[in-house]
Amino acid sequence: MLKEAVYHRPGECWAYGYDPHTVHLRLRTSKGDRLAVQVLYGDKCTPWAHMLKAEMKHLSSDELFDYWQAEVHPPYGRLSYGFVLIEGSERVWYTERGFHQSEPKEHLGLFEFPFLHPIDVHTPPEWVKESVFYQIFPERFANGDTDNDPGQTERWGGKPSYTNFFGGDLQGVRDHLDHLTELGVNAIYFTPIFESPTNHKYDTRDYYRVDPHFGTTDTLRDLVKDCHAKGIRVILDGVFNHSGITFPFFQDVLEKGPDSKYYDWFHIQEWPLQVNDGIPTYRTFAFERTMPKLNTANPEVKDYLLKLGRYWIEETDIDGWRLDVANEVDHAFWRDFRQAVKEVKADAYILGEVWHDGMMWLLGEQFDGVMNYPLCDAVLDFFVFGHDDAYSFAAKIGGYLARYPKQVTESLFNHLDTHDTARLLTLCKGDIRKMKLAVVFQFTYIGAPSIYYGDEIGLAGEFDPDNRRPMIWERERQNRELYDFYRTLAVLRRSHSALFNGEFRIRSAERDSNVLVYERQHGCEHLIVAMNRGSEQADVHVSWGSMRWHDVFGSEETQPIDRPSQHTLGAYEFRVWLNQEQDTCRTN
Amino acid sequence: MLKEAVYHRPGECWAYGYDPHTVHLRLRTSKGDRLAVQVLYGDKCTPWAHMLKAEMKHLSSDELFDYWQAEVHPPYGRLSYGFVLIEGSERVWYTERGFHQSEPKEHLGLFEFPFLHPIDVHTPPEWVKESVFYQIFPERFANGDTDNDPGQTERWGGKPSYTNFFGGDLQGVRDHLDHLTELGVNAIYFTPIFESPTNHKYDTRDYYRVDPHFGTTDTLRDLVKDCHAKGIRVILDGVFNHSGITFPFFQDVLEKGPDSKYYDWFHIQEWPLQVNDGIPTYRTFAFERTMPKLNTANPEVKDYLLKLGRYWIEETDIDGWRLDVANEVDHAFWRDFRQAVKEVKADAYILGEVWHDGMMWLLGEQFDGVMNYPLCDAVLDFFVFGHDDAYSFAAKIGGYLARYPKQVTESLFNHLDTHDTARLLTLCKGDIRKMKLAVVFQFTYIGAPSIYYGDEIGLAGEFDPDNRRPMIWERERQNRELYDFYRTLAVLRRSHSALFNGEFRIRSAERDSNVLVYERQHGCEHLIVAMNRGSEQADVHVSWGSMRWHDVFGSEETQPIDRPSQHTLGAYEFRVWLNQEQDTCRTN
Repeated sequence: MLKEAVYHRPGECWAYGYDPHTVHLRLRTSKGDRLAVQVLYGDKCTPWAHMLKAEMKHLSSDELFDYWQAEVHPPYGRLSYGFVLIEGSERVWYTERGFHQSEPKEHLGLFEFPFLHPIDVHTPPEWVKESVFYQIFPERFANGDTDNDPGQTERWGGKPSYTNFFGGDLQGVRDHLDHLTELGVNAIYFTPIFESPTNHKYDTRDYYRVDPHFGTTDTLRDLVKDCHAKGIRVILDGVFNHSGITFPFFQDVLEKGPDSKYYDWFHIQEWPLQVNDGIPTYRTFAFERTMPKLNTANPEVKDYLLKLGRYWIEETDIDGWRLDVANEVDHAFWRDFRQAVKEVKADAYILGEVWHDGMMWLLGEQFDGVMNYPLCDAVLDFFVFGHDDAYSFAAKIGGYLARYPKQVTESLFNHLDTHDTARLLTLCKGDIRKMKLAVVFQFTYIGAPSIYYGDEIGLAGEFDPDNRRPMIWERERQNRELYDFYRTLAVLRRSHSALFNGEFRIRSAERDSNVLVYERQHGCEHLIVAMNRGSEQADVHVSWGSMRWHDVFGSEETQPIDRPSQHTLGAYEFRVWLNQEQDTCRTN
Repeated sequence: MLKEAVYHRPGECWAYGYDPHTVHLRLRTSKGDRLAVQVLYGDKCTPWAHMLKAEMKHLSSDELFDYWQAEVHPPYGRLSYGFVLIEGSERVWYTERGFHQSEPKEHLGLFEFPFLHPIDVHTPPEWVKESVFYQIFPERFANGDTDNDPGQTERWGGKPSYTNFFGGDLQGVRDHLDHLTELGVNAIYFTPIFESPTNHKYDTRDYYRVDPHFGTTDTLRDLVKDCHAKGIRVILDGVFNHSGITFPFFQDVLEKGPDSKYYDWFHIQEWPLQVNDGIPTYRTFAFERTMPKLNTANPEVKDYLLKLGRYWIEETDIDGWRLDVANEVDHAFWRDFRQAVKEVKADAYILGEVWHDGMMWLLGEQFDGVMNYPLCDAVLDFFVFGHDDAYSFAAKIGGYLARYPKQVTESLFNHLDTHDTARLLTLCKGDIRKMKLAVVFQFTYIGAPSIYYGDEIGLAGEFDPDNRRPMIWERERQNRELYDFYRTLAVLRRSHSALFNGEFRIRSAERDSNVLVYERQHGCEHLIVAMNRGSEQADVHVSWGSMRWHDVFGSEETQPIDRPSQHTLGAYEFRVWLNQEQDTCRTN
């Protein structure tokens, strides 16, 4: 038994409240060991003989480790626990005091989850995991009001540059909500819409004003109202790490220098404000002089931004915030931001842009979720770039499943491309088959999938600025087969709790293999997905249990299968099977 | 190279801000591997060629692992980093994406500490690590005012029971402050002093009133003033997990049941309030019916207690709070408590009673420190009970050194006994030699030592209630030699920054050995401690470098040593050497 591989520490993803009555305990062990793992647990103030024992279930595996999980219910709020590692006839007990060859006999040396408080349980909004997001870059989605077009507006369909405008606006979104509802989308993430001189608007001039080229507060309010009427939630992009250079308070500093009363609103290293060898004398986003970093530790700045966080919810009823460059803003700010926002809308979604491990923002008192770049990278590597074999891909996924508390993993924002990356279709070099594999995984994995506007109709685009092309609205120029494919997945996703509440388990992912088989299950609902990301056909063997199954994308209406079977998947082919006996299962 | 042993995850004790310009990075590797470790780091927005490399220093080791640490300065606030593990000619790179056989070539796969914000740096009060605490159980320290004695007050010096009273009070403490200043104490922790029917007062009746048998708010204010005049800080015990059964709001619930407006101030599971088979129908401390648990998630309760936290600081100028059963109160409460307290006294000490791993309370936004029970247990096991050999003891200490951020370890409250344990002398079965070894370690280790009242003059006592005997004031009944020993250590502790700011390094701790040699160093200050916890004499070999050294407890005034030397330590003997050339070192 490789003791060095064993890891547990109360907190983070290892011991956390899942709901007001349930604590999840996780343990890491070496993948090389063939262990069974139990948890010994109970209330520290009851006699030792009252301690309970439960088997830990295998949660997932990565390259080096197995991860185990148990759901336990602290009988009186308090929880003491230890682990029993069983390898053949060998038993080792693992507690806060280390490894023991015999069973501990008292509570004191055990791990503790001292008290399960509902207020400390990380509780992301329920609706998030049931959502299919659609990301809109408003300047490029639709021009619904030509009266508010910028002076230099170019022809819709032209080539995007870093600086040009096409006239997209909020009215344009209102006009095309049917496109979204037909697609099966029920949440929108808008990149910034507040006043700014650029087309991307990540350099805010006025946080309290909808950009006049996009509309007004009334347009936004009407848009949100329309969305809500159609069952679509709306989150806005909060760019609180930095303002734009035209932000009046920064302009005041530029003008008055250290005499400005806004001097401490920014991170000024040295006066005068200038750029030396590419490095500004004030902190910025990257080294971008037009994006001065806000001093969010300054109580005035904090107050200003917290009011803002509430203001747009109160004024327009938006459903949350996507937070730009969220990991470069201080944690103290985000703790207060969460409280401010949740006070006015308890189920607002707080989504941080964190490209790396987000654990320190996901303890429950800051963000509900983060943009899931690690997942995106893994999916692209396997399905699109062909870098990993099925084993390595499954290992990455296995690591991700253990990385965060379950409710966090369920509330992550799973994109495959955004305004900050090349478009999926372009990454696939136009090969729709690869794109579909990636998207099938996205929609059948844990977490809320997000479609970057236009992906669903075959919009292509290299890295910025090409990834921000105007949406194509002429039906004949849209890839309608791709659209139908997305729609099928969105409907599937939203109508099956196995997909938003269910467990994820790898069934097959061998070394040097292109074939991945996995399943999702929640109660009676059960899906099996098989994929061949290779350019040659491959066989998969599937055990079905006693259920009858339906091939979701199959040509036949229903294809019952009731015994283990072999299927041949063509190059880049996939199958999604859904069990058909949910009603029977429920009544049993 | 044992990859399974390698651990790092940004946050907790692995990557944290140490000061506004410094991030500490730590890495864990297998003790079996003989590695050198480097960190590769820099700003993610500068060219890859600008990345820097630094050697990581060996921080400590436990039974299975080596721990490494580097101090790095993010050039523009942002920090990307990875590790290089070197074993002979083999090099392995370790990043957020795992292990690599070649050097990474871009920032994106590295670990991130996205931005070093001073507001997120855990900053315990500087004074804590320079303090020698003295814990007073007021009912048993001194009776300074017989007018406020309880009705049934027994003769001072009698035998404590769970329920009897001896008349100790705050005036008694005022009268004996010279005892403390002579001893070298500069901080007092008082167990509870607010009104309560018991002698321990952990079951509060009135949080806003000093117990009338202890004095009044004025007495407390005068006492704190006297203490401050003598350079002694004062912290009080905040019992916020539960009230007493006589707390009027709980009485209101007992009387009115669900109609009481205080019903939700407690964790009531079932009405009526009763005890079934030893289990109350409401949550309590342990299953103690007289200590109903407060619902600290209820905004009214929170408001009440946060005001209280500020009130006693504002009214009497106390310097912080020791928080009883702190780990069973919700984290959300403690975050707000910290803010409330620090608003009125920025350098107040917030000390939580957490017997286990306290990491989740020590991230910077809750407690400054916790009561260091794990250290206490390790010291007793080695020096007092003789359970561990020097190797195992050093391994425990090595694990503790890596467990928390450096500034947290420095601000822990290091007791060897309290009102909740048997007394140290009694644990030592009266063997002062063992007691001294434990105390020498306590005073020369990292963190603030605390003396439980009376230990310094040889007070003995079994577990509660015997550990709460009245203090002995007759000089002839005091162990004055022990008192002088404590005084020497307190003076040593407070006058040498090597002890409160310095590194701790094990020099010798072999398997099956009774001999422990370690050193403390800060700048020019350097101490070496050698101890034999065995019943037979033992030899130690000490290398001295170029310094001249002084035996702190030696009979000769000064004993210069300038070459490696062998010393024979008798049974339970220790030596503390202090270097004598600090001035020379400083001017060099």
